[in-house]
Amino acid sequence: MKRILHVGVGPLGHRIIAELQERSLGHVIAAVDSAPHLAGRPLAEIVSNADPKVRIVPSLDAVHDWDHIDAAIVATSSGLPACTSTFEYLLRKGTAVISTCEELVYPWLRHVAIAEELDDLAKRHGGRLLGTGVNPGFLMDALPAFLTSVCRHVKAVSCHRIQDASSRRIPFQKKIGAGLDDAQFAAKVAEGSLRHVGLGESLHFIAHYVGLPIERWEENIEAVKADHDLNCGLGPIPKGKCCGVRQVARGYFDERVVVNLEFQASIGQRDPHDRVTIHGEPDIDVVIPGGVHGDIATSAIVANSIPRLLQAPPGLHTMATIAPPIHVRAGTERR
Amino acid sequence: MKRILHVGVGPLGHRIIAELQERSLGHVIAAVDSAPHLAGRPLAEIVSNADPKVRIVPSLDAVHDWDHIDAAIVATSSGLPACTSTFEYLLRKGTAVISTCEELVYPWLRHVAIAEELDDLAKRHGGRLLGTGVNPGFLMDALPAFLTSVCRHVKAVSCHRIQDASSRRIPFQKKIGAGLDDAQFAAKVAEGSLRHVGLGESLHFIAHYVGLPIERWEENIEAVKADHDLNCGLGPIPKGKCCGVRQVARGYFDERVVVNLEFQASIGQRDPHDRVTIHGEPDIDVVIPGGVHGDIATSAIVANSIPRLLQAPPGLHTMATIAPPIHVRAGTERR
Repeated sequence: MKRILHVGVGPLGHRIIAELQERSLGHVIAAVDSAPHLAGRPLAEIVSNADPKVRIVPSLDAVHDWDHIDAAIVATSSGLPACTSTFEYLLRKGTAVISTCEELVYPWLRHVAIAEELDDLAKRHGGRLLGTGVNPGFLMDALPAFLTSVCRHVKAVSCHRIQDASSRRIPFQKKIGAGLDDAQFAAKVAEGSLRHVGLGESLHFIAHYVGLPIERWEENIEAVKADHDLNCGLGPIPKGKCCGVRQVARGYFDERVVVNLEFQASIGQRDPHDRVTIHGEPDIDVVIPGGVHGDIATSAIVANSIPRLLQAPPGLHTMATIAPPIHVRAGTERR
Repeated sequence: MKRILHVGVGPLGHRIIAELQERSLGHVIAAVDSAPHLAGRPLAEIVSNADPKVRIVPSLDAVHDWDHIDAAIVATSSGLPACTSTFEYLLRKGTAVISTCEELVYPWLRHVAIAEELDDLAKRHGGRLLGTGVNPGFLMDALPAFLTSVCRHVKAVSCHRIQDASSRRIPFQKKIGAGLDDAQFAAKVAEGSLRHVGLGESLHFIAHYVGLPIERWEENIEAVKADHDLNCGLGPIPKGKCCGVRQVARGYFDERVVVNLEFQASIGQRDPHDRVTIHGEPDIDVVIPGGVHGDIATSAIVANSIPRLLQAPPGLHTMATIAPPIHVRAGTERR
């Protein structure tokens, strides 16, 4: 059982801590969250199966026992700049850090200087850093990249994640704009609260690792409209109102789309699925009917990545540079 | 462009050499084959795009220039014992070796002592060794294992590879027993010439890495019978005769099937596909309609694995211990 320092006790952090304990993969021996309603409270008040002796502290400065920490998990923010000082602190201690920070999945897209600094810091202090999750982190980047391993030529890669949000948590239904009218939807897009973060990172991950250079890229977001009256946890959605979001990122070379990513989540969505299509030699078309459940998958891939990151050399890693994470079963040793 | 030593200039070796040259990934600077009709001949007589200066030599003893070799490829035999002396020779030189030897994909199933000796030899001399291919090596082992990375629990893994052999090479149609009657089919099974090698290796690869211990396992092989008159490259196949092969491997724990692998290749096979089903949390059902083309995929994954093996630490590797191979495009640098 690994001894874990956990940073960020929000809904996702909660899920990760509970899973590590349940699966006997990680014992959270220190927890950090700066939110005033959390700091100082026993972790077990928030996550029922957590160690009753652990109290949430407001900052990394209040963590002791660094010698006993095997790995750290950071589940705080989607944006890399907001996480940078936390990563720096942990890497200076030589810690192996796994984060759900979406921009960290391929940090060179928006933050080359930070990425280089973190890589350098990790190497100097023997630390390791990895950004992962189900999307970004797996379905639209690591998985399609791995599928191209059987290709002698790749012309283009296309991924679709089409989700039915009918039975998802109400905060998720809210997040995708269910029930809004056009003006409300546009306002939420403008303030940035409706966007799925990571599509651009996945796109550049594929372009970089598969060797599909892109000259320009674009990302669009639009509302999905109810084509008949719908119902969801938030209440009824009349025909014509927004019932979800559709986000598309495309990377071009010579005016040809070489990476195409489409993410759609809406109430009442028909035929939900994940799909990866490799246009190449051979062509490969992979369909996951029903799709991969997002909430379960993200905490699982974080937990399953821990041993892989610990085996990797120091530095800033991606899902393409560590050995492939695989479901870990406590108590079984692996070669 | 990597400088490659190639061992085994049979049909698969031929394909690999040609692909490395075409894709500008590898320059074969030495080729070894002990077959009397090959040794001594210019490699370019066999593989038209090979370096005209390279002559096939009969044994590794006739290879010089070890300092200039970046990696070796061995495409000789399905069985590990038949390849062992070649691997030993290469590992003693500190070479990175990729082989299509099916048993090497998970050598601990049938040859624990050889596996340990090769690992030890590799570590002592700075060599690396990997067994790969599309099956075994990817579709029924590395891919399903990677898919479990998003699972918090795995109860069982099931893989199906269902191929239509109608348009495949005549040697492949022969190999799967097309056109034989029951007695002929049974005779070929008994002499071992009809078996797909690697199902047991894939099964134990999954069991080991996913953490699904098995108490016993079994493998069955049977003929697929033509349910109507068929035609193939070998001639007509009357209804009732064999038109292909079906091979099933199952691993059990507490009398429950925890790993189930089904391989079927037949003339006129309807709905050819590859499929991986993870029974767990979440369930994941992955379908590749049409399936992955076997001949193209095997040489491609060998070529694409070269940089990954070179980055890995010395030792005996598997597809679960190197960073995931990804399509390599010559001239593009990767992080």
